[in-house]
Formats: sequence, structure tokens, C-alpha cells
Amino acid sequence: MSLILYDCATAPSPRRARILLAEKGLAHETVQVDLRTGEQLSEAYRQVNPLCTVPALRTEEGRVLTDNAAIAAYVEARYPDPPLMGVTPEDKAEVASWAWRAEFEGLLAIAEAFRNSSPAMVNRALPGPVDYPQIPELAQRGRARVQQFFQTLDARLAGREFIATERFTLADITAVVAVDFARIVKVGITEQQPHLMRWRAHLAERPSMVL
Amino acid sequence: MSLILYDCATAPSPRRARILLAEKGLAHETVQVDLRTGEQLSEAYRQVNPLCTVPALRTEEGRVLTDNAAIAAYVEARYPDPPLMGVTPEDKAEVASWAWRAEFEGLLAIAEAFRNSSPAMVNRALPGPVDYPQIPELAQRGRARVQQFFQTLDARLAGREFIATERFTLADITAVVAVDFARIVKVGITEQQPHLMRWRAHLAERPSMVL
Repeated sequence: MSLILYDCATAPSPRRARILLAEKGLAHETVQVDLRTGEQLSEAYRQVNPLCTVPALRTEEGRVLTDNAAIAAYVEARYPDPPLMGVTPEDKAEVASWAWRAEFEGLLAIAEAFRNSSPAMVNRALPGPVDYPQIPELAQRGRARVQQFFQTLDARLAGREFIATERFTLADITAVVAVDFARIVKVGITEQQPHLMRWRAHLAERPSMVL
Repeated sequence: MSLILYDCATAPSPRRARILLAEKGLAHETVQVDLRTGEQLSEAYRQVNPLCTVPALRTEEGRVLTDNAAIAAYVEARYPDPPLMGVTPEDKAEVASWAWRAEFEGLLAIAEAFRNSSPAMVNRALPGPVDYPQIPELAQRGRARVQQFFQTLDARLAGREFIATERFTLADITAVVAVDFARIVKVGITEQQPHLMRWRAHLAERPSMVL
């Protein structure tokens, strides 16, 4: 049985899994789930992933992994080459820390800004099966936080090729998805962040980045 | 050089690291950082952890790990027995997923409820060096989310001894810290959640739980 990725081509969360699979060189089938029409909330998709989110990954053994945390941990253990989460304890710590910060200070802040301001997201301030109303102050705060995080990333990347270790890792994946997704709330990287710009331009050489 | 944990005995985030070190059987020194007086923002502590948060862990080699993500990844790789993050790829996925959910749907929701309502937390709606004002709606939403998450945990624990796998893992640590910390926003587990109550009562037999 081949790997199946439940995906949505336009969304940032499944992009993390797409890049991960590509960097591991893992062939897989793709099933598109249309978030614009609410297909993730359909009865059919609930049977696949009760969390009503993408990505989900069906393994070769038929088990469904329902979030990026599970997918990254599984793929790294099951298909260890090339390593994307560090090899030494010290490197594993750096990858875990920067991937966590890129998620919490980056992606989550952007999601707060977007979901709490977009007319398309009324009552969808959080993903998943439960509706939550928008909180406009949270949209403002999210934009401030992601700008702060881009400063953090820029400082980190001074004199460095990649964010966490000497090689490309999961931290770079989560961070690049955040950087690119931030455009949706009109936050971009600028000449004030030269290290971040250099890193993003250098990553563009990787085939996985077009995914 | 011995392990040094920068800790605060009354706070939930460093409790995660305290329990982790105890479950691994790792002796260490402790340095208390007084969050009530803002010691985490002092110049001296910034030299240790520029993120101004606890926990931080100084390794035997003298490197400082500045968040729970780094600490867990490092400790699991450097001191693998007993394993707390799963052994098989499938178990690693379950631990990663449930630890992530306990953090985002549990701890983060409680922190939102507490930091956005407590008079002691005015302008401290997020941890770290940057001040953010409180958002009252976020306090309400946080309480609703953590109640929702406790329902999720209760359903997961039906017929199970531990949250992620057949043995105690990091997911149990993060979840028990969330369950206990929720009291601060007056959310408790009740007879409506019999599986969650049984799990918490059973965990009480572990020496690490008094930490």
C-alpha cells in the first residue's frame, strides 16, 4: 500500500508535509481536500481524520497520522535518510527548539492574524470541528508577533546557512512555510532582514520549495 | 559538570522538565528563578536564557537549552532509558501527536485563559521579553478550549492506561501538567470524565508527580 497524503494545495499546514515528503524522497499518492468548500468538515473526511484538518498521512501499513507533529516524528523514524530532525542530541535539541518556535511564534501568529480578520473565516478563528468567533485584537497581535519573529530569525541566520544546524532540517521547513504564508496578512521580509532574505533566496534552489 | 535546571517551583512550564528529569532518573542541580518578582526578565537571567522563560537546562557539556521542546529532544537522545517519546515509528507518532495536542489545546489554552484575565498579568499576555496587552475574549475562549480538550482526553483514555502508548510517555507529562494547571482558571476534571479521573488517580502513584 502506498503512502497517501491528504492535502490542500493552497494551504500552509499541508505544505509542511509536502516539503517533508519531498526532502525524504518519498513517493506518495495525494488526495486533495477542498478547504474553500469546507470539505474537511464533511462526513467522508471525518472518517479519515476526525480532527477535520489537513495534512493527514496514511502510512504504508494503513494507519492514518492526523497532524504534522505525528507525520514528522513517524517519517523521521521510519525513513531516517536524510535526517531532518538532527542526529546528535545537541542537534536534535536545536531542531526541536527552532521548529517549535517557527510553529508557535511564526505559523500560529500568522494563523491568528488571518483567521481573526478574514471575512472568509468568520466563526472559524481556530481550525477543527468546533467553531470559535473572531477576536479582532488577536489579528493585530498576530501581525506584531510574526514581525517580531522574523527579526528573531534574521538575527539567528547571521553567518548561518540553515536555521537549526549545519544542514537543512525540519526547522527550515516550518520557517519557510511561515515566511511564505505571512504574505496573506501582508507581512513580508525586507532589506531590514538581510540574513533572512539570503536564506530564503538560497532555499529557492531546492526542488521541494515549489511544492 | 552536572545538569542544572533553571526552574520555578510554582510554574507549570518548568514542571514539565522536572517530571521529565525525574522519570529519566537524572540527578541535577536546581536554580530557582522567581517569576513573581520578574527575575526571569533580569539582566542576569537574560545571560542564561535570552527568551526570559523557564525552564532552561544547562547540559553536562555546558550548553543551555532554552525551552521544553529542546529539553525533551535532548534528554531523550542523550539519556535514552527509559524511552519517553516512543520506540517504534508508530509510537513516536502517537507521542508526538498527543504531546503536541496537550501543549496547544491544553497548556496554551489555559495560559490564554490565565494570562488574559489575571490582574497579576496585565501586559503579560504572552511570556518572553515583549509585553502584550490582555485580550479578555481570549480568556473566555481559553476556558472553553481546555474544557473541550479534557473531553478529548477522556474519550482517548477509555480502556487505556496511558495517553499515547502502552507505557508512560512525554504525552502523559504534558497532559498531567495541563490538567493540574487548569485549576488556576477554575477548570477541573469531574465525574463526567471518568477515564481522565482514573488516569490522574493512577499517575499519583508515580514519585515524579509530587514535583
